[in-house]
Amino acid sequence: LPRIAVSLGDPSGIGPEITAAALALPKVRRALVPVVFGDERAWKRACRIAQVPDRLERRALASAATGPALVPVTTLREKDLQPGKPTAAGGRAQLAFFERALDAVLEGQADGLCTAPVSKEGIAKAGIPFTGHTEVLAERFGARVLMLLAGPKLRVAVHTTHVALSEVPRRISTKGIVEDLVLFDRGLKAGLGIAHPRLAVCGLNPHAGDGGLFGDEESRLIAPAIRRARAKGIDASGPWAADGVIGRAAAGAFDGVLAMFHDQGLVAFKLLHFDEGVNLTLGLPRPRTSPDHGVAYDLAGTGRANPASMTAALLLCARLASQVPQAARGVRLASRK
Amino acid sequence: LPRIAVSLGDPSGIGPEITAAALALPKVRRALVPVVFGDERAWKRACRIAQVPDRLERRALASAATGPALVPVTTLREKDLQPGKPTAAGGRAQLAFFERALDAVLEGQADGLCTAPVSKEGIAKAGIPFTGHTEVLAERFGARVLMLLAGPKLRVAVHTTHVALSEVPRRISTKGIVEDLVLFDRGLKAGLGIAHPRLAVCGLNPHAGDGGLFGDEESRLIAPAIRRARAKGIDASGPWAADGVIGRAAAGAFDGVLAMFHDQGLVAFKLLHFDEGVNLTLGLPRPRTSPDHGVAYDLAGTGRANPASMTAALLLCARLASQVPQAARGVRLASRK
Repeated sequence: LPRIAVSLGDPSGIGPEITAAALALPKVRRALVPVVFGDERAWKRACRIAQVPDRLERRALASAATGPALVPVTTLREKDLQPGKPTAAGGRAQLAFFERALDAVLEGQADGLCTAPVSKEGIAKAGIPFTGHTEVLAERFGARVLMLLAGPKLRVAVHTTHVALSEVPRRISTKGIVEDLVLFDRGLKAGLGIAHPRLAVCGLNPHAGDGGLFGDEESRLIAPAIRRARAKGIDASGPWAADGVIGRAAAGAFDGVLAMFHDQGLVAFKLLHFDEGVNLTLGLPRPRTSPDHGVAYDLAGTGRANPASMTAALLLCARLASQVPQAARGVRLASRK
Repeated sequence: LPRIAVSLGDPSGIGPEITAAALALPKVRRALVPVVFGDERAWKRACRIAQVPDRLERRALASAATGPALVPVTTLREKDLQPGKPTAAGGRAQLAFFERALDAVLEGQADGLCTAPVSKEGIAKAGIPFTGHTEVLAERFGARVLMLLAGPKLRVAVHTTHVALSEVPRRISTKGIVEDLVLFDRGLKAGLGIAHPRLAVCGLNPHAGDGGLFGDEESRLIAPAIRRARAKGIDASGPWAADGVIGRAAAGAFDGVLAMFHDQGLVAFKLLHFDEGVNLTLGLPRPRTSPDHGVAYDLAGTGRANPASMTAALLLCARLASQVPQAARGVRLASRK
């Protein structure tokens, strides 16, 4: 079975409890060996909230993991575990869980990475700059990555991720869109088993600029990228008006949509697939997945948080990790710490 | 019955045929007296495509309309009516239909306005600058207006409409958001019969900026507007992350969502309500509605275009027109031509 490093996420959010709930499911236990990077007190508390037995063995080092394991990264106090009440220590902890889990993958001690939700704001309160898991992974693996949200009806990737809207226009690039389309095409083929992915590319502006009436990025930057991708044999089309094409994709006309910015793609995705979507990072040598929702402070501690997206994220990670060629497993990847 | 001025839309698109189909429905004929501003050849052709009888009487002047009427605005040739093949004459015509219909409302000859889809690109090809019905209405009525998309599950208004994405950040204003919330609150109360509208306001940036990590418009411009609106007794909240709040609104947590820009609100709306949504302009002394879709050149002439959104637009316009106080009817409105 593939060994999946799991980071426990924000200890004041729903991450620990949905992780506990998901890892207790027989279908998950049959699919992977979890190595959870977290905090012992947070983990036990999460098992109580989720009303599941604590089946993980504590191990000091991830390298010693031969079965389901909990690797304690921090020693948090009760006050750092209050639902919906993030502390600076909790902010530091959630980032430490992620970094230790990532180290385990980079060092070949795990075959894939699944991350429970963190709070960017919580981490920032601890004084640490952090824009997102995806951005850190790109930097640490030294790779261009693409954030893909995958659900039963819709698969959406975003060309720009966690940047201010005012920054978006200057971050659109022809070269970057071509690279995204290459990753998208390859990811859908290899990861999701779609033989001939049909990719739709959104315009940047409303109605894709309506023929240049508002904004010219479509003809200047996006259309040339689509032509170049097509020359590489990728079945990409567009630039399409986002408010028309995403519905068509959800109805089956396309296998994937490349949105130009976060809200253009993610609002629709979360509307369709709130409890079942998975966030998948394309472009890394090892799979990385996460649920498509956040820390949900309002639900934390209530036991009502739905573990479906975390479950789907764990299962997809395990499936992708099983597909990594045997020759590449156990190879120590270059860490760029 | 209220008299509704109807503009026939792009003669190469689906506008004429969905108008013909919708106006033939008994529930529509029972609700309003249509005065269609269009072209005789285009209208007859549309009735044939929609397979409905031509029941409108031709009248030279809208002022003479005492029953269902067609007011011929242009004399188009066959070549200007080819489905999916817009001509310059067709571009000019669709704008002329709209302007004559608008005149009829401004001059008190009609109680409301319902506009079939136009092609902004088609109008631009005729050499006429045009950004949208909503923008022209604001200018002609001399009023601040708000574009509202209303469907069974979701009601979304947009603070900025048809502008390049790079223009959006500088168009966000505290004063404008307050005015939008006043119009939104009033429109939902008076027009849609919601006694105490709960309005959610989206942030501009991904995750509403995640506490200032990417973009500061939320704290600098949007939050102050929400406070001012609340001081006026409006139940507004936010700024919320768009990718979370729109799903919550669709599930019933809010009566309306104010999005900051076009694709933030409209992608989700069209995904949920493609064939049943209505576009309603708030802030005018007379109601104006339209379907929430475009000219659909690929469907034009096939008879397969769904008239449901046009039907809903006509019925909502009639209902709103019936609510305009009797005292205000027939009053000649100031035309700002």
